[in-house]
Amino acid sequence: MANLDNLIHQPVRLRIVSSLSTLSEDESMEFTFLRDLHELTDGNLGAHLRKLEEAGYVSLEKTFVDRKPRTFIALTRKGRKAFSEHVKALEQILKDKP
Amino acid sequence: MANLDNLIHQPVRLRIVSSLSTLSEDESMEFTFLRDLHELTDGNLGAHLRKLEEAGYVSLEKTFVDRKPRTFIALTRKGRKAFSEHVKALEQILKDKP
Repeated sequence: MANLDNLIHQPVRLRIVSSLSTLSEDESMEFTFLRDLHELTDGNLGAHLRKLEEAGYVSLEKTFVDRKPRTFIALTRKGRKAFSEHVKALEQILKDKP
Repeated sequence: MANLDNLIHQPVRLRIVSSLSTLSEDESMEFTFLRDLHELTDGNLGAHLRKLEEAGYVSLEKTFVDRKPRTFIALTRKGRKAFSEHVKALEQILKDKP
Protein backbone atom coordinates (compact mmCIF):
# COMPACT_ATOMS: atom_id res chain seq x y z
CA MET A 1 0.00 0.00 0.00
CA ALA A 2 1.27 3.45 -0.87
CA ASN A 3 2.45 5.30 2.20
CA LEU A 4 1.74 8.97 2.61
CA ASP A 5 4.31 10.92 4.59
CA ASN A 6 2.30 12.36 7.47
CA LEU A 7 4.74 15.21 7.98
CA ILE A 8 4.49 16.30 4.36
CA HIS A 9 0.76 15.57 4.02
CA GLN A 10 -0.23 18.47 6.30
CA PRO A 11 -1.66 21.08 3.89
CA VAL A 12 0.67 24.00 4.68
CA ARG A 13 3.76 21.80 4.69
CA LEU A 14 2.67 20.21 1.43
CA ARG A 15 2.66 23.68 -0.14
CA ILE A 16 6.02 24.60 1.41
CA VAL A 17 7.78 21.41 0.37
CA SER A 18 6.21 21.50 -3.09
CA SER A 19 7.56 25.04 -3.61
CA LEU A 20 11.01 24.07 -2.39
CA SER A 21 11.01 21.02 -4.65
CA THR A 22 10.96 23.29 -7.69
CA LEU A 23 14.45 24.54 -6.84
CA SER A 24 17.53 22.84 -8.16
CA GLU A 25 19.86 21.20 -5.63
CA ASP A 26 22.13 24.21 -5.15
CA GLU A 27 19.31 26.74 -4.82
CA SER A 28 17.43 28.01 -1.80
CA MET A 29 14.38 30.15 -1.19
CA GLU A 30 14.19 33.11 1.11
CA PHE A 31 12.03 32.88 4.23
CA THR A 32 10.09 36.06 3.43
CA PHE A 33 9.47 34.94 -0.15
CA LEU A 34 8.09 31.58 0.98
CA ARG A 35 6.03 33.30 3.68
CA ASP A 36 4.41 35.73 1.24
CA LEU A 37 3.94 33.10 -1.48
CA HIS A 38 1.74 31.03 0.83
CA GLU A 39 0.25 33.93 2.77
CA LEU A 40 1.65 32.74 6.09
CA THR A 41 2.79 34.57 9.18
CA ASP A 42 6.42 34.49 10.35
CA GLY A 43 5.38 32.35 13.31
CA ASN A 44 3.39 29.87 11.30
CA LEU A 45 6.06 29.37 8.64
CA GLY A 46 8.74 29.18 11.34
CA ALA A 47 6.86 26.41 13.18
CA HIS A 48 6.38 24.33 10.04
CA LEU A 49 10.02 24.78 9.04
CA ARG A 50 11.19 23.63 12.46
CA LYS A 51 9.24 20.38 12.04
CA LEU A 52 10.65 19.86 8.57
CA GLU A 53 14.16 20.67 9.79
CA GLU A 54 13.86 18.22 12.69
CA ALA A 55 12.98 15.50 10.18
CA GLY A 56 16.02 16.45 8.12
CA TYR A 57 13.84 17.50 5.19
CA VAL A 58 14.95 21.14 4.95
CA SER A 59 18.07 23.06 5.85
CA LEU A 60 18.09 26.67 6.99
CA GLU A 61 20.93 29.06 6.38
CA LYS A 62 20.96 32.33 8.25
CA THR A 63 23.07 35.05 6.74
CA PHE A 64 23.40 38.80 6.52
CA VAL A 65 22.72 40.74 3.34
CA ASP A 66 23.43 44.46 3.56
CA ARG A 67 23.73 43.98 7.32
CA LYS A 68 20.16 42.65 7.52
CA PRO A 69 19.53 39.08 8.71
CA ARG A 70 18.04 36.83 6.07
CA THR A 71 17.16 33.15 6.14
CA PHE A 72 17.42 30.87 3.14
CA ILE A 73 15.70 27.52 3.02
CA ALA A 74 16.54 24.52 0.89
CA LEU A 75 15.15 21.04 0.53
CA THR A 76 17.73 18.44 1.57
CA ARG A 77 18.32 15.32 -0.46
CA LYS A 78 16.33 13.41 2.19
CA GLY A 79 13.47 15.92 1.90
CA ARG A 80 13.48 15.70 -1.87
CA LYS A 81 13.28 11.92 -1.72
CA ALA A 82 10.48 12.00 0.88
CA PHE A 83 8.49 14.47 -1.22
CA SER A 84 8.95 12.42 -4.36
CA GLU A 85 7.72 9.28 -2.57
CA HIS A 86 4.79 11.17 -1.07
CA VAL A 87 3.71 12.37 -4.51
CA LYS A 88 4.00 8.84 -5.87
CA ALA A 89 1.83 7.55 -3.00
CA LEU A 90 -0.74 10.28 -3.68
CA GLU A 91 -0.82 9.45 -7.37
CA GLN A 92 -1.27 5.79 -6.57
CA ILE A 93 -4.19 6.52 -4.22
CA LEU A 94 -5.83 8.83 -6.73
CA LYS A 95 -5.46 6.42 -9.63
CA ASP A 96 -6.05 3.12 -7.88
CA LYS A 97 -9.10 1.28 -8.97
CA PRO A 98 -10.24 -1.56 -6.76
CA MET B 1 -5.12 29.75 -4.05
CA ALA B 2 -6.24 26.16 -4.47
CA ASN B 3 -8.28 24.97 -1.52
CA LEU B 4 -7.82 21.51 -0.16
CA ASP B 5 -10.92 19.93 1.38
CA ASN B 6 -9.84 19.21 4.96
CA LEU B 7 -12.42 16.46 5.35
CA ILE B 8 -11.18 14.62 2.27
CA HIS B 9 -7.49 15.39 2.84
CA GLN B 10 -7.29 13.07 5.87
CA PRO B 11 -5.31 10.03 4.58
CA VAL B 12 -7.86 7.28 5.28
CA ARG B 13 -10.77 9.35 3.95
CA LEU B 14 -8.74 10.23 0.87
CA ARG B 15 -8.41 6.51 0.14
CA ILE B 16 -12.10 5.84 0.84
CA VAL B 17 -13.38 8.69 -1.31
CA SER B 18 -10.92 7.91 -4.08
CA SER B 19 -12.16 4.31 -4.20
CA LEU B 20 -15.81 5.41 -4.23
CA SER B 21 -15.06 7.91 -6.99
CA THR B 22 -14.23 5.04 -9.34
CA LEU B 23 -17.87 3.90 -9.27
CA SER B 24 -20.39 5.20 -11.74
CA GLU B 25 -23.27 7.29 -10.39
CA ASP B 26 -25.69 4.38 -9.92
CA GLU B 27 -23.17 2.06 -8.30
CA SER B 28 -22.26 1.52 -4.66
CA MET B 29 -19.57 -0.36 -2.76
CA GLU B 30 -20.14 -2.75 0.07
CA PHE B 31 -18.93 -1.81 3.54
CA THR B 32 -16.96 -5.04 4.01
CA PHE B 33 -15.31 -4.68 0.61
CA LEU B 34 -14.20 -1.12 1.36
CA ARG B 35 -13.05 -2.16 4.82
CA ASP B 36 -10.88 -5.01 3.51
CA LEU B 37 -9.59 -3.01 0.56
CA HIS B 38 -8.06 -0.42 2.88
CA GLU B 39 -7.26 -2.81 5.73
CA LEU B 40 -9.49 -0.98 8.19
CA THR B 41 -11.52 -2.14 11.16
CA ASP B 42 -15.31 -1.91 11.18
CA GLY B 43 -15.12 0.85 13.80
CA ASN B 44 -12.53 2.89 11.96
CA LEU B 45 -14.32 2.73 8.62
CA GLY B 46 -17.65 3.44 10.34
CA ALA B 47 -16.29 6.57 12.01
CA HIS B 48 -14.87 7.94 8.76
CA LEU B 49 -18.09 7.18 6.89
CA ARG B 50 -20.15 9.02 9.50
CA LYS B 51 -18.06 12.15 8.98
CA LEU B 52 -18.39 11.87 5.22
CA GLU B 53 -22.14 11.25 5.55
CA GLU B 54 -22.58 14.28 7.82
CA ALA B 55 -20.95 16.41 5.15
CA GLY B 56 -23.31 14.95 2.55
CA TYR B 57 -20.41 13.36 0.66
CA VAL B 58 -21.55 9.74 0.89
CA SER B 59 -24.85 7.95 1.26
CA LEU B 60 -25.31 4.67 3.08
CA GLU B 61 -27.95 2.14 2.23
CA LYS B 62 -28.64 -0.65 4.68
CA THR B 63 -30.31 -3.69 3.24
CA PHE B 64 -30.71 -7.41 3.73
CA VAL B 65 -29.23 -9.92 1.35
CA ASP B 66 -30.14 -13.53 2.16
CA ARG B 67 -31.46 -12.27 5.50
CA LYS B 68 -28.03 -10.86 6.39
CA PRO B 69 -27.63 -7.11 6.93
CA ARG B 70 -25.37 -5.44 4.41
CA THR B 71 -24.41 -1.80 3.94
CA PHE B 72 -23.73 -0.23 0.58
CA ILE B 73 -21.93 3.07 0.24
CA ALA B 74 -22.05 5.52 -2.63
CA LEU B 75 -20.49 8.87 -3.31
CA THR B 76 -23.15 11.57 -3.62
CA ARG B 77 -23.06 14.16 -6.35
CA LYS B 78 -21.83 16.64 -3.72
CA GLY B 79 -19.11 14.20 -2.66
CA ARG B 80 -18.04 13.61 -6.22
CA LYS B 81 -17.76 17.35 -6.84
CA ALA B 82 -15.83 17.90 -3.59
CA PHE B 83 -13.39 15.10 -4.48
CA SER B 84 -12.88 16.43 -7.98
CA GLU B 85 -12.10 19.90 -6.62
CA HIS B 86 -9.79 18.47 -3.99
CA VAL B 87 -7.82 16.60 -6.65
CA LYS B 88 -7.61 19.76 -8.75
CA ALA B 89 -6.30 21.68 -5.74
CA LEU B 90 -3.73 18.96 -5.06
CA GLU B 91 -2.58 18.97 -8.67
CA GLN B 92 -2.25 22.73 -8.58
CA ILE B 93 -0.16 22.61 -5.41
CA LEU B 94 2.06 19.88 -6.80
CA LYS B 95 2.59 21.60 -10.12
CA ASP B 96 2.77 25.23 -9.02
CA LYS B 97 6.04 26.89 -9.59
CA PRO B 98 6.63 30.17 -7.81
